Amino acid sequence: MARLVLKFGGTSVADIDRIANVARHVKREVDAGHQVAVVVSAMSGKTNELVEWCRQASPMHDAREYDAVVASGEQVTAGLLAITLQRMGVNARSWTGWQIPIRTDGQHGAARIQEIEGAEIVRRFGEGQVAVVAGFQGIAPDNRIATLGRGGSDTSAVALAAALKADRCDIYTDVDGVYTTDPRIEPKARRMARISFEEMLEMASLGAKVLQVRSVELAMVHKVRTFVRSSFEDPDAPGMGDLLNPPGTLICDEDEIVEQQVVTGIAYAKDEAQISLRRVEDRPGVAASIFGPLAEAGVNVDMIVQNVSEDGTRTDMTFTVPAGDLPKAVKVIEDARSEMRFDVIQSDKGLTKVSVIGIGMRSHTGVAATAFKALADRGINIRAITTSEIKISILIDGEFSELAVRTLHSVYGLDKAPV
Amino acid sequence: MARLVLKFGGTSVADIDRIANVARHVKREVDAGHQVAVVVSAMSGKTNELVEWCRQASPMHDAREYDAVVASGEQVTAGLLAITLQRMGVNARSWTGWQIPIRTDGQHGAARIQEIEGAEIVRRFGEGQVAVVAGFQGIAPDNRIATLGRGGSDTSAVALAAALKADRCDIYTDVDGVYTTDPRIEPKARRMARISFEEMLEMASLGAKVLQVRSVELAMVHKVRTFVRSSFEDPDAPGMGDLLNPPGTLICDEDEIVEQQVVTGIAYAKDEAQISLRRVEDRPGVAASIFGPLAEAGVNVDMIVQNVSEDGTRTDMTFTVPAGDLPKAVKVIEDARSEMRFDVIQSDKGLTKVSVIGIGMRSHTGVAATAFKALADRGINIRAITTSEIKISILIDGEFSELAVRTLHSVYGLDKAPV
Repeated sequence: MARLVLKFGGTSVADIDRIANVARHVKREVDAGHQVAVVVSAMSGKTNELVEWCRQASPMHDAREYDAVVASGEQVTAGLLAITLQRMGVNARSWTGWQIPIRTDGQHGAARIQEIEGAEIVRRFGEGQVAVVAGFQGIAPDNRIATLGRGGSDTSAVALAAALKADRCDIYTDVDGVYTTDPRIEPKARRMARISFEEMLEMASLGAKVLQVRSVELAMVHKVRTFVRSSFEDPDAPGMGDLLNPPGTLICDEDEIVEQQVVTGIAYAKDEAQISLRRVEDRPGVAASIFGPLAEAGVNVDMIVQNVSEDGTRTDMTFTVPAGDLPKAVKVIEDARSEMRFDVIQSDKGLTKVSVIGIGMRSHTGVAATAFKALADRGINIRAITTSEIKISILIDGEFSELAVRTLHSVYGLDKAPV
Repeated sequence: MARLVLKFGGTSVADIDRIANVARHVKREVDAGHQVAVVVSAMSGKTNELVEWCRQASPMHDAREYDAVVASGEQVTAGLLAITLQRMGVNARSWTGWQIPIRTDGQHGAARIQEIEGAEIVRRFGEGQVAVVAGFQGIAPDNRIATLGRGGSDTSAVALAAALKADRCDIYTDVDGVYTTDPRIEPKARRMARISFEEMLEMASLGAKVLQVRSVELAMVHKVRTFVRSSFEDPDAPGMGDLLNPPGTLICDEDEIVEQQVVTGIAYAKDEAQISLRRVEDRPGVAASIFGPLAEAGVNVDMIVQNVSEDGTRTDMTFTVPAGDLPKAVKVIEDARSEMRFDVIQSDKGLTKVSVIGIGMRSHTGVAATAFKALADRGINIRAITTSEIKISILIDGEFSELAVRTLHSVYGLDKAPV
């Protein structure tokens, strides 16, 4: 007997038929004798509809009212799934965030979970009851509904798994696991059996849209073993109820990964834009004078490259922003030119950031050199490079995106099954 | 300065434009210096959609889960109206049933309000804040959402008005008041300026679909002065903000109606079916043996006519049910034939019940005779008659519905303005 939290996203609960399919997944685990809590998102498209109504009512709206409106979507799905489970003979009840309660901070619209009182749910596990929990929401200190921001149902699931001390958190989604790279670009991409929290964090934040970054952070902090798996497979197919290795990708502590690959995956993010400030005055505080105003304006700065200046007085500063933010970023910089003290601003868009990720890099040298050589052999020009302990990110022209991903995927042997 | 509760139904909040129109009605009252609470229904069609989803998930569903699903519709409208009011510069916040709280009994799906804690809303009136309240819902003793049954937002509004000791409860709807009869049948029907609670109760329960019966009962018990008025008129038209006599119909204590008409209105209900049991054994308990099983089967029995038997042993029993319930009712009776002890069962459908209503009947004689003669003059056959202190109901063939309504409307002078 294990304690499981299952999470189903919007496409998995898109209509009554899909909800019935979800119920079969839940019933399978219940029939196997497990204690089960289910976290659900709103039906596909519903959240967008509710958000759009708020926007139409007023472009600038009270986040507390937005939360009351938008959180209703998950409440509906939770009730419908509980009804469906009951029809199948499964003892189940729905819970909203305020009923459990899932306590959040007061940041309406982007709240963070602070505490989950799981005692009553655990007590009902003892009576064989399944808890169906509305994701994406909690209750703020002002006694009003708070939402966790888009994609927040993953976070709800992981936080609930931590609070309930669950053995596993299964994130059911429309893909069947985490791949070595995007299979739409590289058909030879393979599903990983396991990936460490740290690597998944890099994969998630670099554009592999399987799991929300915050949920992976939370899973890492609380060491919640998290499976990414498909809700679209037959719930009763062989192996689906496997307790140790269900089909999918396990995100876990690196200690659990016995044979660590040097490079685990290749991620990418398209539609990046690059801004270069030439001959910036090289003095303490110059970076703050540039990135402070950008942060205030809500511009999401990603890669930052600053070279050591030749003469100690002037340097070049390059950074990337999402292409959509480029006009705003340029305006912010032009407006603050007098404080920033640079000569020339240059910008370019239509760029792609390709990243090589692997926890094994920490103990292997030459990983970066391999990437640079492979790209050079294909005639792909490198615009900028940043590195961390477990990843190398390379900025290139967008037209080479797919070629670069395939080249890197191949050069590290990711298209071959691990030995 | 007055304290007002305004209620807007589904067609009045059908989309963002309609919600903006509602906000203008609210703002008009706020600008006049009044303290305002607003009760809203779900956007038109939303409740049906949610109910249908519950039905698809399982024809037999847990009323507690149904409530969680269906109550979300009002929550959405309340948030959207609060956002819209804020955009117009009105201080407003939304409230769900559990936040206020509106406490109900445990009858999920058809709960009754037991208590409303209005103190916080009143405190915020002092700060100039408008309370936007999700109608149709409260919180049951099990800490779960309970809905009040269809049309329950009217009841929410009246109960809130009673709890807040409001000066007036305005029910905004898609008609501009209560008419002497259905204007679609009789173009000469006139809007009443005032109608007593008792009369309105008869009008509502007899098919004039302006206000839910329960909300009128509640208004009568708590003496809540209730205006029925249109949300579709220009919110800023002359007279709309009139405190004493806004355009519409005031439902009030009969003491407030100085010149009481003898007959106030003509109501009707189509699609009735009639069941007659011939030569029923005339003994104590026979009525219970017939209507007990029907009630258990959920058949809504309306008119009941039993004649005094000629010889004291056998009598005829006639009653009406909605035409849709006829097959079920006949089956129940056939199944229980041995206990009920009757000779023959006869049934007929396609009937209409026409009712003459007026509190003045209590002190005037001859009202019924006038109706019977008028119908006879038009060749309309009367199948059954029931009467109460303030109404006469007559069952006729459906083909004469409109003719009967017009005839009665005219014979009591309702098509002429009162002197």
